[in-house]
Amino acid sequence: MTKAHIISIGAELTEGRVLNTNATYLAQQIQQMGIGISRITTIGDDINDIVHSLNAPQDILVVTGGLGPTHDDITTDALFQFCTDNFNSFVTKNSWQKTITHYCKTKEINHLHERVCLLKNPVGSAPGVYIKVDKRHIFALPGVPSEAKSLFSKEVEPILKTMSTTYHSHVMRLSGTYESQVQKILKKTNWPKHVEISLLPQYNGVNVVIKSSVEAVAFINDVRSKLQEHIYSESALTLEETISKLLCAQQKTIAVAESCSGGFASHLLTNVPGSSSYFQHGVVSYSNEAKVKILGVRPETIEKYGAVSSECAQEMAQGVRKITQTDIGIATTGISGPTGATPNKPLGLLYVAYADKDNTIVRKKVIRKPRVEHKKHSAHFVLGLLWECLKDKKNDKKK
Amino acid sequence: MTKAHIISIGAELTEGRVLNTNATYLAQQIQQMGIGISRITTIGDDINDIVHSLNAPQDILVVTGGLGPTHDDITTDALFQFCTDNFNSFVTKNSWQKTITHYCKTKEINHLHERVCLLKNPVGSAPGVYIKVDKRHIFALPGVPSEAKSLFSKEVEPILKTMSTTYHSHVMRLSGTYESQVQKILKKTNWPKHVEISLLPQYNGVNVVIKSSVEAVAFINDVRSKLQEHIYSESALTLEETISKLLCAQQKTIAVAESCSGGFASHLLTNVPGSSSYFQHGVVSYSNEAKVKILGVRPETIEKYGAVSSECAQEMAQGVRKITQTDIGIATTGISGPTGATPNKPLGLLYVAYADKDNTIVRKKVIRKPRVEHKKHSAHFVLGLLWECLKDKKNDKKK
Repeated sequence: MTKAHIISIGAELTEGRVLNTNATYLAQQIQQMGIGISRITTIGDDINDIVHSLNAPQDILVVTGGLGPTHDDITTDALFQFCTDNFNSFVTKNSWQKTITHYCKTKEINHLHERVCLLKNPVGSAPGVYIKVDKRHIFALPGVPSEAKSLFSKEVEPILKTMSTTYHSHVMRLSGTYESQVQKILKKTNWPKHVEISLLPQYNGVNVVIKSSVEAVAFINDVRSKLQEHIYSESALTLEETISKLLCAQQKTIAVAESCSGGFASHLLTNVPGSSSYFQHGVVSYSNEAKVKILGVRPETIEKYGAVSSECAQEMAQGVRKITQTDIGIATTGISGPTGATPNKPLGLLYVAYADKDNTIVRKKVIRKPRVEHKKHSAHFVLGLLWECLKDKKNDKKK
Repeated sequence: MTKAHIISIGAELTEGRVLNTNATYLAQQIQQMGIGISRITTIGDDINDIVHSLNAPQDILVVTGGLGPTHDDITTDALFQFCTDNFNSFVTKNSWQKTITHYCKTKEINHLHERVCLLKNPVGSAPGVYIKVDKRHIFALPGVPSEAKSLFSKEVEPILKTMSTTYHSHVMRLSGTYESQVQKILKKTNWPKHVEISLLPQYNGVNVVIKSSVEAVAFINDVRSKLQEHIYSESALTLEETISKLLCAQQKTIAVAESCSGGFASHLLTNVPGSSSYFQHGVVSYSNEAKVKILGVRPETIEKYGAVSSECAQEMAQGVRKITQTDIGIATTGISGPTGATPNKPLGLLYVAYADKDNTIVRKKVIRKPRVEHKKHSAHFVLGLLWECLKDKKNDKKK
């Protein structure tokens, strides 16, 4: 199997000032294409160390970081030295710099050498660099996560795909289940020898990646039939993008009432381009006063059952859809912590609700996670419920 | 300076299934003790690769993962092979295994060799291992984050402290500025030779990290005086945590009206534990109807100036604070794209507003970033404005 090596460059990483999310993202993406990851190396801003690592014998090398304009951005210097060492009559440092400056001004891609070219950065100023030495492919990307992601998917992925042809990879994105549950179901399948499966846990779901050296259609069909109810996508579509498609197809509008998820559910829904056509409004009703004044939750409900209750979740979902008369309202209320637990209501308790003109559905769960994780999980849990309700109405267009 | 190498072992890491939080934690701890981190290596479950890495020439090696009981936990095998290669008449595999079993039963620490001993795991069953070869110190810890942390602080830290040289590190977190602007200012300082500076770009800001082998008080004071107006924290405090402290100290409540940031500003503010004491509510008013019905923006304002305008931002901030009578209201409105631009209003246009009982302040900016980045930047931009307004009132407690 083709193997890749990921190198992350930056003192902020070796000093533990930021989490290395780029390496994890790249490892996931590369893995899903059927290319193995031999190792991930993180090095500080030391040019000799970087040059040494560039000379490692892996088939594919993806380097991130150190491509910016500041004094500690020395990947460019390391790449230049590497190219000078490896190619006869390589361009001068001056002309390398000129090509990059020209790119920054015009976004025009020029080759630095027959085996070295720049890669367009769709979201930032510094370009990526692609070097081909013998059978090795080296990609250098900026360290800013959004730039690394965007450049990787637009420029690097298409090149890598041509190298992983002997390998088949299929992804199923699942909502409303978890790793060990999926593992149990997969154990009951007739798992062929040439098939490898990776489970990537997500908030309120799992991505199942099925890799094989020959096509595994029958096996994939078998797995699909067993996991059917949880699969929201077998492509790159996220849960919120799947929901977007369903809302558009059913011509429905939505409003969101959030307590414990604190705005993250609205954030996820509005991440999708075009969401303004169905997303009317969201309310983050943190105080009881906001729940009553904005959403119309009855004070008696809060008094009798508490703000973290099935009854309150229901009234929040129903209330938020009334404000601008949307088709659907969804709601979250829970205890994200670190305080707020009571003898009857444990830390992590969560209620989510879905309401439309005919039905109101509430789900309960306890998620024992730190505050921010709990918030994100809550948001994904309510979107999971929304997706379930929407997919069941797939053919029920708005009258 | 003494240097350490961190090795993380596990296919779950090389395949991108989990973030490598252990490495970041260890790097932070070791760094703060004045020991530099030369590199962090992540390798899968391959015994030869692990043995090869154990033989690297670093002074200090901290290995995590692969010490458990399952078939892919092969660090123990690698350590055994390494010791056999390096020490004459090393114990047999059987007696190594017996010593560990004995530890698990009794928690008694026995030496495997004069240079190899077990380390007590305060929170899990598998012990750590400490190997001393020549001048090199190798520590192997379990991969479960809570066990790695606990074993490191209880057993490894005391040993490392005896090896560290003094090292100073100081961070300044800046809002409302950017990398090249800070660089320009730093160029005008009298930068001592023993000082190293890293700039870490953030949304709507930069973190400046000043490192030195001897204390650099005068230099830090100089930098501080030049960057003063942008510094919101010189500790680990984030912008939203700094805002939280100011709101609590000034006993003020807040409400948020978001259009283009889509809920992300509310999400950031509610990430802070205890935020329910000042965060009353947020409104994600995506539709014009929601802006009018929930926030009370005048339809004439939207008709005359458009929803993306200074006037609309002002009325949103003023409107949202009226609903539950909060002290402060903040608002965002802009064009996150990919569509929505007009000849007069470019993609990326953004207005943010701050309103209290006395003042309303609006800021304009154009951020040419993809949709999700634009949303996040918008949220940080409005929080930056909020921080500026709050810090100016530092001593102006609520009457």
